[in-house]
Amino acid sequence: MQKVVPMAERAILLLSSSRVHGYGYLEHAKPQIVDFLKRKNVESILFVPYALIDHDKYTATVSAALTPWGYKVEGIHTKKCPVEAISSAQAIFVGGGNTFVLLKTLYEKKLIDPLRQQVLHKGIPYMGSSAGTNVATRSINTTNDMPVVYPPSFEALRLVPFNINPHYLETDPHTEHKGETRDERLNEYLEYAKLPVLGLREGTALLVQGDKATLVGDRKAKLFRPNAEPVEYEPNSDLSFLLQL
Amino acid sequence: MQKVVPMAERAILLLSSSRVHGYGYLEHAKPQIVDFLKRKNVESILFVPYALIDHDKYTATVSAALTPWGYKVEGIHTKKCPVEAISSAQAIFVGGGNTFVLLKTLYEKKLIDPLRQQVLHKGIPYMGSSAGTNVATRSINTTNDMPVVYPPSFEALRLVPFNINPHYLETDPHTEHKGETRDERLNEYLEYAKLPVLGLREGTALLVQGDKATLVGDRKAKLFRPNAEPVEYEPNSDLSFLLQL
Repeated sequence: MQKVVPMAERAILLLSSSRVHGYGYLEHAKPQIVDFLKRKNVESILFVPYALIDHDKYTATVSAALTPWGYKVEGIHTKKCPVEAISSAQAIFVGGGNTFVLLKTLYEKKLIDPLRQQVLHKGIPYMGSSAGTNVATRSINTTNDMPVVYPPSFEALRLVPFNINPHYLETDPHTEHKGETRDERLNEYLEYAKLPVLGLREGTALLVQGDKATLVGDRKAKLFRPNAEPVEYEPNSDLSFLLQL
Repeated sequence: MQKVVPMAERAILLLSSSRVHGYGYLEHAKPQIVDFLKRKNVESILFVPYALIDHDKYTATVSAALTPWGYKVEGIHTKKCPVEAISSAQAIFVGGGNTFVLLKTLYEKKLIDPLRQQVLHKGIPYMGSSAGTNVATRSINTTNDMPVVYPPSFEALRLVPFNINPHYLETDPHTEHKGETRDERLNEYLEYAKLPVLGLREGTALLVQGDKATLVGDRKAKLFRPNAEPVEYEPNSDLSFLLQL
């Protein structure tokens, strides 16, 4: 008989973006981040800067934001063994940038399974923003990023069993530009994948605690589903049903 | 000794978009399209509708636009053997839609080599718009589309040896949205690929005739190069140097 690994309480915070107009880096989400990390008694955060090209500079930005809040921030790129760094992390933060570059690097460094193991089975808190949110979901099929590199797969960490579109926004209906709107792009995904996507506007996040998923932040989120009209959810809505997919 | 295949005069017209504000489908480019096809005495066009999901509907749209101009339009999806259809086409038009879906289908139907052969060695005219322009270039790394399906490679037809960004536009500098701007996305590509990208604004196209490449349409194009400032080119500029890369 296969040994059943007990599930620790999952703790996942997926931010639409790290920046919101009028705020400093991560500043808009400070109360949510502090509360999220306090519940797991986190003092030290392992930062994954792979989505941008300059890892040192990126880690310095994140450290400048989070150190004053009382956290120690270390870049995974400074560690001898990234797999070991994931396995011994108190909490993990995967920053935004280019989703294709990020996912390709996670595959190259063989971090997909260790990340899943830590978050899903050991309950290690995972925070992502933008690209770091995309890679936490089922796949990167709903990223907004340009495919500047070719990853070995679009399948991602599957910490949640559906897709998210970060930085979600409605296209200005008065534009004369003929490029596709965001909603047209997401509907293309629905046509091919037949799977739901949560459009997370800037300033909002999805918080997963155990079996409960909640929309946090002060704006609505828009859920796109195959063969159905999109549905808007108010701030603080219970979105736990999405975890049952 | 390997037999040298003589190069017929290439004829490639790569449109930024099929639609421009205030015009019907392809209408803005009518003089350029008619002139382009007349030089090769084209009467019949093989249309490749793979970038959209409804091939019949898409072919009907294209036929409704081009039949009144005197061309017969046939959808490749109505042919028993797509490879044979490419090999016997008088001219090929690859329409826009989702670039990932389009390129994946070209690979699945084994059309990459036949298309290259026809266009580069036999001088069969190739017209593309939007996604049809992306797949004609070196790679699809600079598409604006959402990666709704996973193609076996991002390498494309390489009918021209550089990349194009269709629907190119500058992002509104007053936006409060924190998603990346188009220029930031293209600069990410430059950082990783170290290769140039031509930003083609809607209403413009790149016309290749033999060894000569010309910017057509009434707006400038913006060339992005690694480690250099972007350069704007006026309408009708000679861009033949891009073919020498």
